[in-house]
Amino acid sequence: MKKRAKIVGAGGYGGVGLTELLLQHPGVEIACLVAKDETGRPISDIYPHLKGWCDQVVLPPDAPEASQPFDVVFFSTPDRVGMRTAAEELARGARVIDYSGDFRFNNPAHYADYAGRIGLDTTHLAPELLPLSAYGLPELGLDDIASAKIVGNPGCFAVSVLLGLAPAARHALIEEGSAIADCKTGVSGAGKKPNASFHFPARHENVNAYRLTGHQHVREIETRLAALAGMDDYRITFTPQVVPATRGILSCCYGRLAPGVTREQVIEAYTEFFRDRPFVKIFDISQPIGTAHVRGSNRCYLTVDADTRTGMLRVISHIDNLMKGQAGSALQNMNLMLGFPETMGLDRPGQYP
Amino acid sequence: MKKRAKIVGAGGYGGVGLTELLLQHPGVEIACLVAKDETGRPISDIYPHLKGWCDQVVLPPDAPEASQPFDVVFFSTPDRVGMRTAAEELARGARVIDYSGDFRFNNPAHYADYAGRIGLDTTHLAPELLPLSAYGLPELGLDDIASAKIVGNPGCFAVSVLLGLAPAARHALIEEGSAIADCKTGVSGAGKKPNASFHFPARHENVNAYRLTGHQHVREIETRLAALAGMDDYRITFTPQVVPATRGILSCCYGRLAPGVTREQVIEAYTEFFRDRPFVKIFDISQPIGTAHVRGSNRCYLTVDADTRTGMLRVISHIDNLMKGQAGSALQNMNLMLGFPETMGLDRPGQYP
Amino acid sequence: MKKRAKIVGAGGYGGVGLTELLLQHPGVEIACLVAKDETGRPISDIYPHLKGWCDQVVLPPDAPEASQPFDVVFFSTPDRVGMRTAAEELARGARVIDYSGDFRFNNPAHYADYAGRIGLDTTHLAPELLPLSAYGLPELGLDDIASAKIVGNPGCFAVSVLLGLAPAARHALIEEGSAIADCKTGVSGAGKKPNASFHFPARHENVNAYRLTGHQHVREIETRLAALAGMDDYRITFTPQVVPATRGILSCCYGRLAPGVTREQVIEAYTEFFRDRPFVKIFDISQPIGTAHVRGSNRCYLTVDADTRTGMLRVISHIDNLMKGQAGSALQNMNLMLGFPETMGLDRPGQYP
Amino acid sequence: MKKRAKIVGAGGYGGVGLTELLLQHPGVEIACLVAKDETGRPISDIYPHLKGWCDQVVLPPDAPEASQPFDVVFFSTPDRVGMRTAAEELARGARVIDYSGDFRFNNPAHYADYAGRIGLDTTHLAPELLPLSAYGLPELGLDDIASAKIVGNPGCFAVSVLLGLAPAARHALIEEGSAIADCKTGVSGAGKKPNASFHFPARHENVNAYRLTGHQHVREIETRLAALAGMDDYRITFTPQVVPATRGILSCCYGRLAPGVTREQVIEAYTEFFRDRPFVKIFDISQPIGTAHVRGSNRCYLTVDADTRTGMLRVISHIDNLMKGQAGSALQNMNLMLGFPETMGLDRPGQYP
Repeated sequence: MKKRAKIVGAGGYGGVGLTELLLQHPGVEIACLVAKDETGRPISDIYPHLKGWCDQVVLPPDAPEASQPFDVVFFSTPDRVGMRTAAEELARGARVIDYSGDFRFNNPAHYADYAGRIGLDTTHLAPELLPLSAYGLPELGLDDIASAKIVGNPGCFAVSVLLGLAPAARHALIEEGSAIADCKTGVSGAGKKPNASFHFPARHENVNAYRLTGHQHVREIETRLAALAGMDDYRITFTPQVVPATRGILSCCYGRLAPGVTREQVIEAYTEFFRDRPFVKIFDISQPIGTAHVRGSNRCYLTVDADTRTGMLRVISHIDNLMKGQAGSALQNMNLMLGFPETMGLDRPGQYP
Repeated sequence: MKKRAKIVGAGGYGGVGLTELLLQHPGVEIACLVAKDETGRPISDIYPHLKGWCDQVVLPPDAPEASQPFDVVFFSTPDRVGMRTAAEELARGARVIDYSGDFRFNNPAHYADYAGRIGLDTTHLAPELLPLSAYGLPELGLDDIASAKIVGNPGCFAVSVLLGLAPAARHALIEEGSAIADCKTGVSGAGKKPNASFHFPARHENVNAYRLTGHQHVREIETRLAALAGMDDYRITFTPQVVPATRGILSCCYGRLAPGVTREQVIEAYTEFFRDRPFVKIFDISQPIGTAHVRGSNRCYLTVDADTRTGMLRVISHIDNLMKGQAGSALQNMNLMLGFPETMGLDRPGQYP
Repeated sequence: MKKRAKIVGAGGYGGVGLTELLLQHPGVEIACLVAKDETGRPISDIYPHLKGWCDQVVLPPDAPEASQPFDVVFFSTPDRVGMRTAAEELARGARVIDYSGDFRFNNPAHYADYAGRIGLDTTHLAPELLPLSAYGLPELGLDDIASAKIVGNPGCFAVSVLLGLAPAARHALIEEGSAIADCKTGVSGAGKKPNASFHFPARHENVNAYRLTGHQHVREIETRLAALAGMDDYRITFTPQVVPATRGILSCCYGRLAPGVTREQVIEAYTEFFRDRPFVKIFDISQPIGTAHVRGSNRCYLTVDADTRTGMLRVISHIDNLMKGQAGSALQNMNLMLGFPETMGLDRPGQYP
Repeated sequence: MKKRAKIVGAGGYGGVGLTELLLQHPGVEIACLVAKDETGRPISDIYPHLKGWCDQVVLPPDAPEASQPFDVVFFSTPDRVGMRTAAEELARGARVIDYSGDFRFNNPAHYADYAGRIGLDTTHLAPELLPLSAYGLPELGLDDIASAKIVGNPGCFAVSVLLGLAPAARHALIEEGSAIADCKTGVSGAGKKPNASFHFPARHENVNAYRLTGHQHVREIETRLAALAGMDDYRITFTPQVVPATRGILSCCYGRLAPGVTREQVIEAYTEFFRDRPFVKIFDISQPIGTAHVRGSNRCYLTVDADTRTGMLRVISHIDNLMKGQAGSALQNMNLMLGFPETMGLDRPGQYP
């Protein structure tokens, strides 16, 4: 019998991406779709590509059918939504995967710092759940996702940068304080809600950096890099940019090579770090890789290099922000939590072109 | 045991699209990839998104391994390639599916007319195979694809327009000679080969009509509409256009309503014609449909309408030119020819956005 | 001394386009910028490309400086704004150019029909001004724009279709009731305000038809075609579509050729109709024209053809929706009203690519 | 009487961009268009947007009319074309502006290094002209462009990065060897010639880094930064990337702040360096700037910042690669060489959106 999943926030890009993936998953069925807006209509009215594949009616959060026990509940919701009701879901026997920052920090102080940076209330509403939570980037090997009750699904920029810098942090390949992440994202990372910045005419033929005064992903990235490095603090310079594409994040990760570190050591360290990780592939700089090559898949393609002329590490990380950067990672975490093979439902390439 | 497929023309968009689909098909395996260029390298070197999914080496056409018996052979090749070697493949026991115009006309005179319009030699090189061939658009119900030895896979514009006008032609809903197909295609329809017209800066922020002096798809479309209408001749005005998107064809099909035909009769006729056809969905004009909703799927979404104020039929047909317009139809035809369920390997929505 | 212009609705695309043009006009200066939102800031804060070229502060409509006499006042505003205050501007000596439907019909009944179709109050608020108004498409030669006190600047689709069909209507080249306009627009035609349909991820890689149940431009188009044809009524089938580009409208205009009309007569009629019209150029179907070739200019490029095989007129009309479709036409009308050469400030090509 | 200009390489993007600009220049006329391909046709056949504005026939290089004396000759040609015939043009009295690397280094050894990196013959064919040449980036204040006989027009990436790092190099704001330029360019930088990498379907929805093994612009950038810094050598890490836009370069320039350098000092240094430079504008990180805001203009918009938390300089440089990155700089250099005001013909904003 299939496991039963509920998706809260079914109407957004994070919800629809997960719906598409669960439709292909042999072990889990979509049992309940919940959203705040556009309720009472089949999801296939909102997303006509789903017609006939998934015609479930979207329910409001307080619908009785939404309060049944489920095996897994996904919160594809803004910050501070999941933390309000995760306990109820746990009590009914579910495992919880939350897309927001609510469970990315298993430490109230780190949460408070993160929340403060983005103008949120800094008090976590369910601190008692934090010890039950894990950070959902399995490739880091930091937390035990399989046994966690709650997983904080990572942010899309964080996935991109952490996969690009984790081996460097773990093995001290670069000098402290020298890390830079220059990140280019497609527009879908901003979600489904219309906004002047993401209006087609404002965005087409436009490339821009934004939130230069501070970005919430830095806290998440720095916390994990510090853990990997065994340090209290790990600072990076982070420059988020938007490019006129719908999907994809390309992050150029730089850092000054530590004394004596060679190009060969760098490549060896990255290769080792991701050995047996099914979704990360290492490429040589002679191979032409772009975000189109991971579009629609849960993979991260890393072009690993060290510019020996200038003494710089340069790793280029390519993901699909809606897959490995969001719904794909969520499914991967679900597989680990429910005991399915890690790649189940994620075992196919995207479509090209 | 899985059936074994060979793809000739594996390096183009038609080949890679089919490769992606066959990787998901439970009953058929990719046994051989053949191309003229870039041979001797894994296909995943040419298309890095396939790395690990399909790393077969691309063989030249004369490689010994390419001359084994296969269950099905796809010619994703230009005109007049398949007709040269299809007989050999049949002799080794294969069924053949050809993407070009070579087997779209089971009549040498029609072929000659088609070939002449596009400047090709008008002599079919394998006329003895024509009686064994069928036109590969199952929704028309014209030919017996399941029993054909060779299927001429339809052109992408033809799929789009034929699905949009077939019920009108079959049921004489519109006046003779009044049909117009105003078709907008994404750029991938032109294939993988670079060209001044499809160079990114020439194409971005540009919409243009082309080949206004005549277009090869008209012959194919008119032949089938005439068959549906039971007429000798069925003329349409056809205006191909390119829009700055990679995938998708949106065709607006018009025709003057025959005397007495009502809007209700039109909708009824379309609904009936495509009843039980798994890949065609009929929509009302109140539902907002775009090419994005069929991107990546084998579906055709039809918005069916009649403008009673002006007495015009208006049907808007949406397909993904690389799926229902090419590789998806090829897989659908393969399923019918090899006895698999028609939707096998095509049973999922695309990704949105 | 330069004439002084006021722009009401300065913050939208229609306002900024006019600002760009007036900055280049030797005879007119921007004296006042008015908007409802984002007031109190320099326009160059809202549109940073104007920095140093135009740093005027945007005023609210009721600012005292906005109530001075101006030589020309542009209402780049939604329907039913201009009609409320045009009389005041006239009283202070200004000529008025309104971008909305308020002054496109110099007949209250036509206005009521138009307004009703788009759900507006059908009562014109300034019917006494209608006799002073003209329809602002000089190429039609229907109204005396130079002497009008008020010009109703035409809608972008209307410009595109009217230039494509005017000679056919005037010279009865096509049969009554057979005209079809299949129109593809870039997204900027929808204006600056964000909207779910024009959100980048929803629009990129998407082509769709919309408002199939009725579109306000039809009334405007039909009124003018009827006038050209000397008929009471002139019906067209109109299909608006959006393509993933910022600028440009490509309209395919069809109609059944009247008995005996030849291709040569069609080309001759179009050539004659637009002889000496500086902004319309006629092209042969052998010349590859796209919307990119009019991007940034006030021109309309017409590809004129008749498909003798099917007996159809086919004219493809290309404009930049923000130039000839909006601000460019407004400047052209201003030139005629204020006695400047018609092409002043519009005498340059756009930039390619 | 107007000065007379000849453009060699008139058929490419660099040539057509200059043609558009010269058409607006009050002091210079286009006297001769030369190209290798598509000769014998009016330039407006190749670029239909120029119809009526510039219908001159494109001549082959050896046409007699192309060997007359001109006041200025532009070589919008690949490397090693201009150096072959520049001497002849000088002998006939012309000033020369060359778009390639031929005259960007007034030192044969630097040229040899540059040429070697990109696989060219390292011997300069006209070393006697080098002392007559200047590097054409007036904002650097390094060379006397006004008095030079030949100007080497800078590369587009070089313009972007040099304007972003010049003050830092001149005033030693950052530590030696720490400079990084992470550069994103639109596709038109690759020119008009079709290529598999710039084929629309390969490029749309794709972002990729390229030429990671070495890029010719580094030599050009490092030479000028070294001159500004008064050093023999100045190394930067350079990562060129392509984004799916036609125009625009956004470069993120980083460097470790030298001990004691404050954010205020950085902003002051940049402001001072570009004081009175008409085409460079400095912005604060709170102002949202993107490449769309310089599209079509000759400006460079710099967002100047220092991340004091990490001790990094971060300057974001925005240009239109075909304007300040190519034809616009060429016109600016021409103005300086021929004694016109520096901004003549460049004194207008681009069009938005």
